[in-house]
Amino acid sequence: MRAHTLSVLVENKPGVLARVAGLFRRRGFNIESLAVGTCEEPNMSRMTIVVIGDESQLEQVQKQLNKLIDVVKVSDITETETVERELALIKVSAEPGSTRAEVMQLANIFRAQIVDVGAKTVIMEVTGDTTKIDALEKLLRQYGIKELIRTGKIALQRGAKIVKSTKERVSA
Amino acid sequence: MRAHTLSVLVENKPGVLARVAGLFRRRGFNIESLAVGTCEEPNMSRMTIVVIGDESQLEQVQKQLNKLIDVVKVSDITETETVERELALIKVSAEPGSTRAEVMQLANIFRAQIVDVGAKTVIMEVTGDTTKIDALEKLLRQYGIKELIRTGKIALQRGAKIVKSTKERVSA
Repeated sequence: MRAHTLSVLVENKPGVLARVAGLFRRRGFNIESLAVGTCEEPNMSRMTIVVIGDESQLEQVQKQLNKLIDVVKVSDITETETVERELALIKVSAEPGSTRAEVMQLANIFRAQIVDVGAKTVIMEVTGDTTKIDALEKLLRQYGIKELIRTGKIALQRGAKIVKSTKERVSA
Repeated sequence: MRAHTLSVLVENKPGVLARVAGLFRRRGFNIESLAVGTCEEPNMSRMTIVVIGDESQLEQVQKQLNKLIDVVKVSDITETETVERELALIKVSAEPGSTRAEVMQLANIFRAQIVDVGAKTVIMEVTGDTTKIDALEKLLRQYGIKELIRTGKIALQRGAKIVKSTKERVSA
């Protein structure tokens, strides 16, 4: 079992997320991360889902996803050449005159931006692939991570290839 | 009806996303964006959910969310001072000797990074609040957006305040 990255184009209809998530649950797949937002097509969203589960069942899940009425296109982009990025906001203990300078220096090395400074904490914003964010998180742990939030991975295929609708769609 | 931002701390259990999404669907809420990834607590994830729906029902939904077994903490952070960020990857038509220079210039102005260059396209990575990404998207549309993916918004409260577990938890 290894992680698979699926790019799923869906219509912006109520309940589409619940249906997609429900399908993975029924098949016993664990969703590692999921990010969903608007995309280049009006009234559609694009989801990036990272799942871990039985390899042989994944093809079944993809077929079932494709059958869902609001799902326009599903692609497993695990094996393709992609640009993968994730965004994290990290609130770290960093008191002036104490560890703040060190924390700032680490942010600098990882090209993270300091986006908030409080009396005892700073918030930094960092983007990169999963490994980079994991590495920064590990280093910051010694200073005390107060709160951390990650978007989950999003990915696009390199070059001109795109994940596009192939279903015939009836326009209203 | 206006958009609300909820920060939800959940246990990493199979099906938790389906249960959360199902609850919003049953109450007729439209999920605008959702991002879920690992957080500072081991075996937990933090979701940021942007929903639009009936104001008076939102409190009900929050109560019901809090009752879900794998939900540790729900906070409506709409009214609090937060740092909000979103990440987008945008694939744009940009041929050398033609529009590429203009596209690169726009990327520069928006502090976006070019992360892939193909024969006829480039991919840029941009972070910012929703308005900034909307603005860049609008400007790039004239060149031809081939593919666009957004993570959905994540948000942290400024200063030392955090969204933390308040439920009593039994350690294994």
